Amino acid sequence: MSTRVETFFRSRWVERPPGVTELEPARLPAGFRATGVAYGYKPSGRPDLGLLVCDADDPSSAALFTRNAVVAAPVTVSRRAELAALRAVVANSGNANVGTGEPGLRVAEAMVDAVAKGLDVPATRVGVASTGIIGIPLEGEPLLAGIEQALGTLSPDGGADFADAIMTSDQWPKRASLEVELGRGAVTLCAQAKGAGMISPSFATMLCFVETDAAVDPVTLARLVRGATERSFERISVDGQLSTNDTVFAIASGASGQGVEAGTDDENRFAVALDALLRQLAIEILADGEGTKRLARLVVDGPLAAAEPVARAVGNSPLVKCALGGGDPNWGRILQAAGQALLGGSGEMDLAIESIVVARDGVERGLDDDAQRDVDEAMRQPEVEISLKLAGGPHAGEGAELFFCDLGHDYVSFNSEYST
Amino acid sequence: MSTRVETFFRSRWVERPPGVTELEPARLPAGFRATGVAYGYKPSGRPDLGLLVCDADDPSSAALFTRNAVVAAPVTVSRRAELAALRAVVANSGNANVGTGEPGLRVAEAMVDAVAKGLDVPATRVGVASTGIIGIPLEGEPLLAGIEQALGTLSPDGGADFADAIMTSDQWPKRASLEVELGRGAVTLCAQAKGAGMISPSFATMLCFVETDAAVDPVTLARLVRGATERSFERISVDGQLSTNDTVFAIASGASGQGVEAGTDDENRFAVALDALLRQLAIEILADGEGTKRLARLVVDGPLAAAEPVARAVGNSPLVKCALGGGDPNWGRILQAAGQALLGGSGEMDLAIESIVVARDGVERGLDDDAQRDVDEAMRQPEVEISLKLAGGPHAGEGAELFFCDLGHDYVSFNSEYST
Repeated sequence: MSTRVETFFRSRWVERPPGVTELEPARLPAGFRATGVAYGYKPSGRPDLGLLVCDADDPSSAALFTRNAVVAAPVTVSRRAELAALRAVVANSGNANVGTGEPGLRVAEAMVDAVAKGLDVPATRVGVASTGIIGIPLEGEPLLAGIEQALGTLSPDGGADFADAIMTSDQWPKRASLEVELGRGAVTLCAQAKGAGMISPSFATMLCFVETDAAVDPVTLARLVRGATERSFERISVDGQLSTNDTVFAIASGASGQGVEAGTDDENRFAVALDALLRQLAIEILADGEGTKRLARLVVDGPLAAAEPVARAVGNSPLVKCALGGGDPNWGRILQAAGQALLGGSGEMDLAIESIVVARDGVERGLDDDAQRDVDEAMRQPEVEISLKLAGGPHAGEGAELFFCDLGHDYVSFNSEYST
Repeated sequence: MSTRVETFFRSRWVERPPGVTELEPARLPAGFRATGVAYGYKPSGRPDLGLLVCDADDPSSAALFTRNAVVAAPVTVSRRAELAALRAVVANSGNANVGTGEPGLRVAEAMVDAVAKGLDVPATRVGVASTGIIGIPLEGEPLLAGIEQALGTLSPDGGADFADAIMTSDQWPKRASLEVELGRGAVTLCAQAKGAGMISPSFATMLCFVETDAAVDPVTLARLVRGATERSFERISVDGQLSTNDTVFAIASGASGQGVEAGTDDENRFAVALDALLRQLAIEILADGEGTKRLARLVVDGPLAAAEPVARAVGNSPLVKCALGGGDPNWGRILQAAGQALLGGSGEMDLAIESIVVARDGVERGLDDDAQRDVDEAMRQPEVEISLKLAGGPHAGEGAELFFCDLGHDYVSFNSEYST
């Protein structure tokens, strides 16, 4: 997969919705400014502090956070904010501010206070996020100097700079700016995300920021963001590892004058665009997972209670992931991993790779040479589709979907050498 | 870790129990014969068929099998046998006979029948086990010819040949022959095991065979084997993957004339020896996991319901395992992985590496240079001890222990290229 973004919707699994046009990714919706600066944490000198501001007096917002019992100081601090009415979000990269105790909390609070003071808004209306290494103290003073610098460089075209500033081991920035046609005019919908390792989000992703100039009430916004997150960031796994810092912030400025009201056609149009946006971003995160060479989409047809653990067991199996990396149709490992999540259940499942059934009722089908060649060829493509039908059924309206990537040498190299 | 066995009990975590002496590992207890032959499945020409026979008329036996919903044909066939009174066990390596349907079941039954006929015992008194690749049909005819050959080469000193014949990706054989002093004389206690990949046993290990010439009734034998397995094979994880073929068979011939009765001192002596034997074998399996460079023992102090998932989450985290491989004291990943298993709980845990507390109540302790050097040094040893104390407590009598290994390039290489 190339790091060059020709068009945002480039995965086979995401189509550009009707009425959606791509804009220059730096461009933010009306009522937003952003920036990214290098405050000096990253030895490389790359940007490591992002600031996103909504200039509307009365924006709506929504937020989702990790469920890990070990949480970052910025998550603790953000949870206390007015999450339905945020005016700004500040994020640093390089240090996750986790396991840093009271001093870490004070740094996160000081970040919020500095932004609030600079913008002349209450501190309760500023969110904060961090990403990077865990367990290393985070110094406050350079950060506060960086926030001063950021406050002076905010721009309506700062979306790309902001996206650059939140990257850690990401190889390319993940962001898009979309124009979405509604009934009486267009709104702009943007998002910036980062990922790389420790990616198996639950209720949120590593970090994602969504902005729109549509007018959306906080309850509708929260519902839309939650729904889109469930179908995107919660359906990917790089390494099965739930981060301590996962955060999604969404802010709607209303500056376009276009409203998105619950139960209307406009809500559907907006929801479809938001779904596609977050879904493509999630797949970007997976494609740029540490060392990723190949992606797979697994669809499990089965009762919900079984389908979800089966999907996770297969997608997080190091044996399945190594086979995917090797382009190796060693599908017996998919059955084994699925069976591990079905203790005491039935192993009589059907398995297909790109619609070619390789096992029926748990038994290999003795593929002829042509079919075997097709399976071999499919396993060498950059995006592989796998489907698993559990015993019993039909299971209409149930099942689970998971996008996962291979486990390769680059992941091992990167994660053997990260902190030292 | 060297592949040369100087002494069997060579892990820092297993001591040779008092009254236990090592014998030549090929030597079997009185009343047993075994062999290993090359029947022609492995392209390398290495042994791939093992046969173990107990010549006593009325032996006791016990068996444990995988809980995976996808099970091998030999597991299905063995479950129907008289598991408390087995006379023989046959095992092939190279092909796991899984996902092979009715033809696979017929091959496993034919293996049992051929052994039963050759020994003139009922087919219900023969167990069968397989290990190797999943989902490939297993041809019966060459196997039956191999069984003929095996029946002609059985020997009281065949323990090592049998251990060689059950190896797949193992680099060295895992077996021991012990003399155990009881109150009125000695008994012999032997075992052979194999492991390598797909190792996260639940109720059993990949394959393990235990023989003794003590007289042990089947109920006591089953209890002893289950208890020793819980403290050994169930406490290791190479890759978190529960196999489809895990099997433990234990047979007691009684040929020594020494009885081991429930509730006696002799039972304690025998149980301690069996524990140490299986524990060292389990650590051998881990040390010879695919690509293993370094082992860790994790002790979690906490309520049982939390300690076990925390231990598994840490021991199976690819981030923790890569850091272990790199000798990298990136302990923040241990907190993150533990927190993932404690959704909604408290992340305020204490973490120590070789008794040096690196985090207290979830907060880094700012180690001085000497202590940091000690931690760095400890992480580069072949066996690393990690302890994690969950919030609350004391938790006397609870907690969990897990032995795990690193995730390295050799695991990835091996498992990207296995079937192709």
